[in-house]
Amino acid sequence: MARDKTEKVRQKIIKATDDLLYHKGFNQMSFSDIADASNVPRGNIYYYFKTKDDVLAAVIEYRIEQMRLMLDAWNTEFKTPLERLKRYANIPVIELANITRYGCPMGSLNTELGKSQQELLLISRKQYDTFLVWLKKQFKELVPDQDAKNLAMHLLILTQGLAVLAQSYGDKSLVRRENKIIENWLDSLV
Amino acid sequence: MARDKTEKVRQKIIKATDDLLYHKGFNQMSFSDIADASNVPRGNIYYYFKTKDDVLAAVIEYRIEQMRLMLDAWNTEFKTPLERLKRYANIPVIELANITRYGCPMGSLNTELGKSQQELLLISRKQYDTFLVWLKKQFKELVPDQDAKNLAMHLLILTQGLAVLAQSYGDKSLVRRENKIIENWLDSLV
Repeated sequence: MARDKTEKVRQKIIKATDDLLYHKGFNQMSFSDIADASNVPRGNIYYYFKTKDDVLAAVIEYRIEQMRLMLDAWNTEFKTPLERLKRYANIPVIELANITRYGCPMGSLNTELGKSQQELLLISRKQYDTFLVWLKKQFKELVPDQDAKNLAMHLLILTQGLAVLAQSYGDKSLVRRENKIIENWLDSLV
Repeated sequence: MARDKTEKVRQKIIKATDDLLYHKGFNQMSFSDIADASNVPRGNIYYYFKTKDDVLAAVIEYRIEQMRLMLDAWNTEFKTPLERLKRYANIPVIELANITRYGCPMGSLNTELGKSQQELLLISRKQYDTFLVWLKKQFKELVPDQDAKNLAMHLLILTQGLAVLAQSYGDKSLVRRENKIIENWLDSLV
């Protein structure tokens, strides 16, 4: 029972930090913010995580678990690689309000950490790796004669560039318009 | 003479902060960093800029001046809009070492400020505006029958997405490969 409670509090801290990272960024987020957002006293948080870096690593692990569940669900829900790739490309449309306000949760974090926190970037970058492995698999099935790795990276670049501009201008129509361009590109590959 | 010296010190602070913003980001940069990097005593910096926000605004103004000079030079150096657009797309290749280490100076700053410093984003975003106005002019000349504004935004998205991924993976071959894709796209428009 005690162990269950411990895990529950740990998850509460992780989920609250996940949102804070997305809404404020890593360097603007304090331990006090984490305590406030998770409703766990600051002193107790130290029991679970000694440093902000430790919480970050736990959040990345949590995010990657969630991603894998999502990608597994897509593998079942969508029968063809084209449908799966379009579902991926559709994330910014489905997450329209968040993307136009806070950008991409992965991309904005990687960009921030990449400046002067390279060791944390290496942890955060695993989010990209997770998507890239899955995207590569889809492209390999879609167009076996082409370089699936490069196509996966190109699609990631398209969606990341879109997220950066959509956030900077808070522009929802931009997201819809560029999504069509990406869909047309995917269709053109087949 | 005194006025000249004042302006010289001001410029020294602005240039040092320009680099710091690019290498560390806004929130990781302190007034002490600015004093160290500019070699101007902290107390003296307050004479020129009361807050970090004030230095930021001055840096953006400085960057935009530099951009305009660069774009004017391109207008003279390159005779056709296609050449000019390719010169723009070539920035990440020419700035390869910086882009793969620190990302795009404009994009990374906009992404950081967009989280919880919207009023500063509005100032920083003027960097994008400056490029977009110029890009739009080039596309209008290149393909008068197409939507120049959307094409300008699409090219900005391509280069920004590239900068994000190139920084995250420190991957120089990625920059060269994606640059070819962008050049092919520009050629295909004509």
